[in-house]
Order: sequence, then C-alpha cells, then structure tokens
Amino acid sequence: MSDTMDLELARKVLGEQPFSRLLGARVTAFGDGEASLELDIREELLQQYGFVHGGVLSYAADNTLTLAAATVAGPALITSGFTIDYLRPATGTVLRAHARVVRAGRTRVVTRCDVVTVDDTGAESLCAVAQGNIAVLEEPGGKS
Amino acid sequence: MSDTMDLELARKVLGEQPFSRLLGARVTAFGDGEASLELDIREELLQQYGFVHGGVLSYAADNTLTLAAATVAGPALITSGFTIDYLRPATGTVLRAHARVVRAGRTRVVTRCDVVTVDDTGAESLCAVAQGNIAVLEEPGGKS
Amino acid sequence: MSDTMDLELARKVLGEQPFSRLLGARVTAFGDGEASLELDIREELLQQYGFVHGGVLSYAADNTLTLAAATVAGPALITSGFTIDYLRPATGTVLRAHARVVRAGRTRVVTRCDVVTVDDTGAESLCAVAQGNIAVLEEPGGKS
Amino acid sequence: MSDTMDLELARKVLGEQPFSRLLGARVTAFGDGEASLELDIREELLQQYGFVHGGVLSYAADNTLTLAAATVAGPALITSGFTIDYLRPATGTVLRAHARVVRAGRTRVVTRCDVVTVDDTGAESLCAVAQGNIAVLEEPGGKS
Repeated sequence: MSDTMDLELARKVLGEQPFSRLLGARVTAFGDGEASLELDIREELLQQYGFVHGGVLSYAADNTLTLAAATVAGPALITSGFTIDYLRPATGTVLRAHARVVRAGRTRVVTRCDVVTVDDTGAESLCAVAQGNIAVLEEPGGKS
Repeated sequence: MSDTMDLELARKVLGEQPFSRLLGARVTAFGDGEASLELDIREELLQQYGFVHGGVLSYAADNTLTLAAATVAGPALITSGFTIDYLRPATGTVLRAHARVVRAGRTRVVTRCDVVTVDDTGAESLCAVAQGNIAVLEEPGGKS
Repeated sequence: MSDTMDLELARKVLGEQPFSRLLGARVTAFGDGEASLELDIREELLQQYGFVHGGVLSYAADNTLTLAAATVAGPALITSGFTIDYLRPATGTVLRAHARVVRAGRTRVVTRCDVVTVDDTGAESLCAVAQGNIAVLEEPGGKS
Repeated sequence: MSDTMDLELARKVLGEQPFSRLLGARVTAFGDGEASLELDIREELLQQYGFVHGGVLSYAADNTLTLAAATVAGPALITSGFTIDYLRPATGTVLRAHARVVRAGRTRVVTRCDVVTVDDTGAESLCAVAQGNIAVLEEPGGKS
C-alpha cells in the first residue's frame, strides 16, 4: 500500500470498516494534518436519555484522531490510545469530529480532536474533546 | 428512581440504550463495586483488518466503567471521561469488559476497566485497559 | 475568599505553594479563560540525560490547567486529574505552560495546556500537551 | 548500557536525576514487572492548603510507571505520557508509588500506578491512580 493517503483513499479505508458502516460514518475532510468525520444522528446511536451514546462519541474521536495522523504518516497506523472528556449532552442532527496533528514523530503521532453536534440551523455545540496517541507501524520492507 | 441498583435494574438500563442494543451488549455481573459487560464478536463490529474496532472497545470500556460506579453510587451518573490504552488486536468470539471502583467520593467515582477477548476455548486475552471518571448527579429533591 | 481572581491574586496563591516556590514557578498571564506559568530551567530540574524531568512538565501542566480554570471559576478549585503526552526532549532556558478553558460547567471545568521550552533566541519548541479536569468546590455557605 | 536492570541499577539511575534528588525520591522495590518509589513528605513538597502538591504526585506516578516498565524492558525507555486521577488530599509522612506492567510489547509498555500516603502508624491512604505509556527506544546498534 502506498504510504500517502488522500480523501479518496481515506473514504475507501473507512468504507472497509464494517463498524464504521454500521454507524454510518463518513470522512468529510482529510489533508495537511487535519481530518473530519461525520455521522447522522439517529435513534440507534442514542442512550437511555435520548442523547448520543458516549460510545458513539468515543468511536468518532478514536477514528478521527487516527485519520488526522494518517494525513501526515500514511495508512500504516494503529491507535495506541486516547483520552476523552465529555462536555455536554450530545443532541442534534449531525455528529462531527475534527482532529489535527499536534506532533508527528517517526514512530508516534499525537493528535487532538473536538467533537461537536450540529443542529438543524447548522449551529455547532462542542460535546467532547480528546487527545490521542497513534503508533506508526513499521513498513514490511523497511529498515525498522 | 431508586438510588440503588441490582443486576436486574442494570440490565434494564442497558436495554433502554438503543446503541447498546445495536451492539448487542449484555450486563453479566453487577455488584459490590464491580461490573461486567459482554458482547458477541460479529462481522459488523470489526475494522478493516478483521479485528474488533477500537470504537467497540471504547464503547465497552465507557459503559462498564460507569456500570461499576453505579454499583456504589446508584443510577444517577454521567461519565465525565476516560482514558483507554489498546494493547493487542482484539479477536475471538466474545468481548468482555470488567470494571471495578477505585474510589467512590460523594460527587465523583473513579473506576478502572480491563477489556479482554475470549476465544472458543474460553481463553482470555487482555486487549485494552481504561481508567475513568464518573460524575454523581445531584438528586432532584436532594440538598445538593 | 472572593470568588474572582486576577493576576495579582493568582501570583499570591502560587507564592503560597511551597512546591511552586521550590521549583521557581511564576504566573505570567491570567485572565479570560487563559493562564500562563513559567520557570527558569536549571540543573536541579533535569533528569539523567540533561533534559527537563517529565515531573517538572507534569507539574507545570497540572498547575496551569487549574490556573486557567480559576480565571472563570474562581479559586475554590481542585484538580481532578489530567492526561499528558510528552512530545520532545525538553531543553532551553525557560519552560512555559499555557492553558485555556475548553468548557466551564457549574461543577467541572475542562482545560487544555501546551508546554513549550524557550531557547536563548526566544524560539519556542512544543514539548508536551495536556488535557485536564478541574472540580469546582462547593462554597462554604452555598446550597450544595 | 546493559539491557537488564536490577534494584541497584534502578537506584543509580534515579540518583543521576537531579530533580529526583531535589525531591528526595528513592526506589524501594524493583523487579518482575513491578516497582516502588518513596519520598518523605516535607514542607517544601506541599501546596497552599498543606497537602502534598499534585505535581509531586504526578512526578511520583511518572517515574514509577517508567520504572516498572524498566523491570521488563531495560533502561532504554522514555515516558510517552500518562493519565492521573487524584482521589484524596495527600497527607502523611511518606508518599509511596507502586506500579506494575499491564502489557509489555516490543516497542511500548503500558503500566498502572497507585500512589498512597503513609501515616505515622503505617496506615496507607490511596490518593491517586495513573495509567501510562512507555516507549522502548531503539538500540543504538539494532536493526530498528
């Protein structure tokens, strides 16, 4: 696989994730150290109080943190882990996660993510922030 | 709502979460500062390499961290946030998360969670660890 | 104690922390959801390879995350916890931490912090990023 | 440098950290995936309310998380980052951090740490818990 990615390839990779298809996620921006992912909020994604389930927010953060890393480090990545803080009950029509690279090292990329909900009027409400570590995998034929 | 929970009530609460139903999660233990949640690993929960998607692991950690808190603090809780570290590619037949309370304060409970996969023989493999903060909500008629 | 703080009061509070005096920390900005803390890098603050010890960076992150929260929530705060990622070996003449409020709730403030080193020429190098949770303490005479 | 460590070498490494000498830290156990660090609580390590400063707790967590990793991965390590949750005001005569390895991979070790205070009678009180990531550095002459 090429070690560079563009929006088209990022969408292809997301489309190959059955769980991302189950949730209905789509990549809406990809490049230059930043990436965005969106999904339409529907009843299946909620918790018992009618808000988007924290697990959906953490899914979005996880995937978007790693997508942002892929804009600078290519597709051979694995999420090492992340921290997420929930800020507000998440409600609206669209969930949008946006992440950007803070530091790209040779073996590890650190990224930050904001997760917002968007309502009918397009107004955004910040509902979670995350910070993550992404490991750059060794290339099969590489020296490392 | 009562401020005490048992396994039956925990199952009822999980059953009222559409996202938990979508994923097929079930509570398998609940009490005395500990809780367990399981889900059967199926194709819809995977990522592009055939392993369980990180978002499923983070969902399981999120929910189980808060379930453990509910064993000591009742149902009026909200997950403030958590940290998760992925340890191994997650593969097997069942995903099992087990969490326990580290410290239960009056307004905040701190819990830790281990997420394992279980294979056909019942052997467990630790695939993620998490640490979380759960906020105890004020009671409607309470003094706080 | 007043529930508002300004730069002068923030400096007074820091001056009342023996550990901050031991490290030589000073508040350099405070207000409107943001705060900065600095300390001169000296031999006592290093680890075995000659870089600033991670414990100094985590001290700076911890204190600055909470200082930023104090700009909006007053001095009756306690740090619940935080996550820090180290990005580069920290070397230079001054260590500078800058934090800002992401979300200020009634009982909890979430903040983010960047820690940089500054060299002789004034050039900054980002060496750590953090995300934290600060609890707003109940007022002595308050209803909660 | 050898890729194995024992208690004597761990103490030597800590002794080479000026910041650990400033704080008065000592390694009290080291081996088999676990490590302990202690320091005597003294006035210089406190915050304005007379409790041990969070920065001291985070220093102890940071160092002990990495010491535990060194028991299985040798001394060529660097702390990538960690999460700490404070649980109680820290007061007593001794601060003791104990960490253990959760998972040791080839390039990354994940560890957990409990930080307790010990009073005059030897009674322990858990005051912070942490979870960390430690990167295993490439060997100078190695293939990676």
